[in-house]
Amino acid sequence: MSNSHDSIRAVLWQDDKLLLLDQRLLPQQEVWLEYTDSKAVAEAIHQMVVRGAPAIGITAAYGVVLALRQQLQQGRGDWYARLQPDLKILGEARPTAVNLLWALERMGNRLQSLSPDEADPLGLMLAEARAIHDEDIAANRRMGELGAALISESGCAVLTHCNTGSLATGGYGTALGVIRSAYAEGRISRVFADETRPWLQGARLTAWELVKDQIPVTLLADGAGAALMQQGQVKWLIVGSDRITANGDVANKIGTYHAAIAAKYHGVKVMVVAPTSTVDMSLADGGLIPIEQRSPVEILSLGGQRVAAEGAEAWNPAFDVTPAELVDAIVTERGVVRNPTTEKMREMMNNQ
Amino acid sequence: MSNSHDSIRAVLWQDDKLLLLDQRLLPQQEVWLEYTDSKAVAEAIHQMVVRGAPAIGITAAYGVVLALRQQLQQGRGDWYARLQPDLKILGEARPTAVNLLWALERMGNRLQSLSPDEADPLGLMLAEARAIHDEDIAANRRMGELGAALISESGCAVLTHCNTGSLATGGYGTALGVIRSAYAEGRISRVFADETRPWLQGARLTAWELVKDQIPVTLLADGAGAALMQQGQVKWLIVGSDRITANGDVANKIGTYHAAIAAKYHGVKVMVVAPTSTVDMSLADGGLIPIEQRSPVEILSLGGQRVAAEGAEAWNPAFDVTPAELVDAIVTERGVVRNPTTEKMREMMNNQ
Repeated sequence: MSNSHDSIRAVLWQDDKLLLLDQRLLPQQEVWLEYTDSKAVAEAIHQMVVRGAPAIGITAAYGVVLALRQQLQQGRGDWYARLQPDLKILGEARPTAVNLLWALERMGNRLQSLSPDEADPLGLMLAEARAIHDEDIAANRRMGELGAALISESGCAVLTHCNTGSLATGGYGTALGVIRSAYAEGRISRVFADETRPWLQGARLTAWELVKDQIPVTLLADGAGAALMQQGQVKWLIVGSDRITANGDVANKIGTYHAAIAAKYHGVKVMVVAPTSTVDMSLADGGLIPIEQRSPVEILSLGGQRVAAEGAEAWNPAFDVTPAELVDAIVTERGVVRNPTTEKMREMMNNQ
Repeated sequence: MSNSHDSIRAVLWQDDKLLLLDQRLLPQQEVWLEYTDSKAVAEAIHQMVVRGAPAIGITAAYGVVLALRQQLQQGRGDWYARLQPDLKILGEARPTAVNLLWALERMGNRLQSLSPDEADPLGLMLAEARAIHDEDIAANRRMGELGAALISESGCAVLTHCNTGSLATGGYGTALGVIRSAYAEGRISRVFADETRPWLQGARLTAWELVKDQIPVTLLADGAGAALMQQGQVKWLIVGSDRITANGDVANKIGTYHAAIAAKYHGVKVMVVAPTSTVDMSLADGGLIPIEQRSPVEILSLGGQRVAAEGAEAWNPAFDVTPAELVDAIVTERGVVRNPTTEKMREMMNNQ
């Protein structure tokens, strides 16, 4: 395996603190922020210090550990009930990525299972958070193998959107994990990356990760993807997800749906790579996913300076929903679902 | 008519000088630059002080007047041959918009027609440049009427890309001219405008023009267009063009093709608005149009600061080509071509 370069981690538990690499400042500055308070963790998620659905889930899990430590100073027992307000605040930090709610539910279940006279509740909860983190990295590695195997070409180019790498996950990445594995195997020779407005995660984060891994990367404006596909170089569009519904509809960073339509028009295949923590079988289809609307300022201004004339409005959804009919394959750590349907999704989720 | 607000002009001939509104600084600053040298005019076109296919053509026509005045200081007669180097420099300023070559050819023909002992060659050439300018405004007004009449809805929303307004033309605008006319007639009630990376002509210029005209405008990231169409509000995608080939293929600002594919997927109609000076019947199809590749820096940096990691590359075509099959109507001052074909385009061009 050639993944030795991938040592980027954006979420760390160290010296009894949560450390987050401030992704708003990358790649110019690598600044680590320290957290000991769960409400500050919720704010960090909201403010996009950390972003990417799996990374948000992991961060929230560590946030629960911090909340428990704060509660333990007030007394013992009744962990679950006493932590409810903290869990709620963490759960409301961002609405679209279901990994956040998934991680909180798992941490909540573990809390409920603790005996009131448990000797080391903090140690057990930290172990659960670490397990969520470690399992995410393992899932990414497995998805890397499964997704790379779908790429039958040799030395082809692929297009990706937003950042789905080590920064967006526990480590290695979802879509970018597949790209890393496929590059190592010679199936991919170049990655085209949408710059991904308005936050420029492609330009700032994906390019940074790929340059570190010495994988050739070419950025482009989000609107240029169709022209790129028209030239025939790109064989796959490979993206992550923030929530996949029971029928295989996919919420992901705004612009994904646009790119998927263009892919279908050009016969470029669409691969969605996400761990099962991203799958929400409780929602029948993508129309039910809450889509986060962010501030118009992200569109109206640039680098703190107003760009658009006063009086102009802006529409700034953070995510869009790609219908299952545009998706060729969903890759999870439990297997690959081709041309997703509710039945196939249910079958995959029942795998262990 | 309700177009009284449209008094924006970006290209002016005044006091024997060419004045250009520096569109790189809008909307924060309104700075006019003066030109008396044709080579400086070519550079202004190249550097995007002025942009928009019809505006580039008009600017080049005035540039020829300046070149002639410079040549007249060296002697009289043989105008056409002596001005060839200046025409060539102007013609190479930007490759994609055919209006530039069209205007230079028209000015060249007028030059050739001048008698060697013509009393006022400069006056005649200035009259020709002014005619090109005036005819463009008249064409925009006519296209405004014709295009608006295609919109059978009442109070609908439309999506536009880049800037195609007074700033991009002699005045009034192509796609934005149709939008102005249709808004005045109550057919349109809101304009969604792609911000249009990397130059942000939508955010900087289109929003500025529409706010001045008190037409409601909502900006969005280029990648959000498909999600917008999914919601069903937008009935038309209305864009300009830099070159239309004999079969109806349309070169326009990068991202147009992306938007047109999404429009087709959602049943949103696509209208292309351009004067016949944009039509290049010498090219059979859009694959033959030279596409300007601009500096990767426009993608890799933002506001003068490097955004992407060192080592990342960028692909930065300024234009893409939308095939005729995605176009519902091409609107010129000579008439409307629905579902364009070479035969229908030829017929339209033969109208007077």
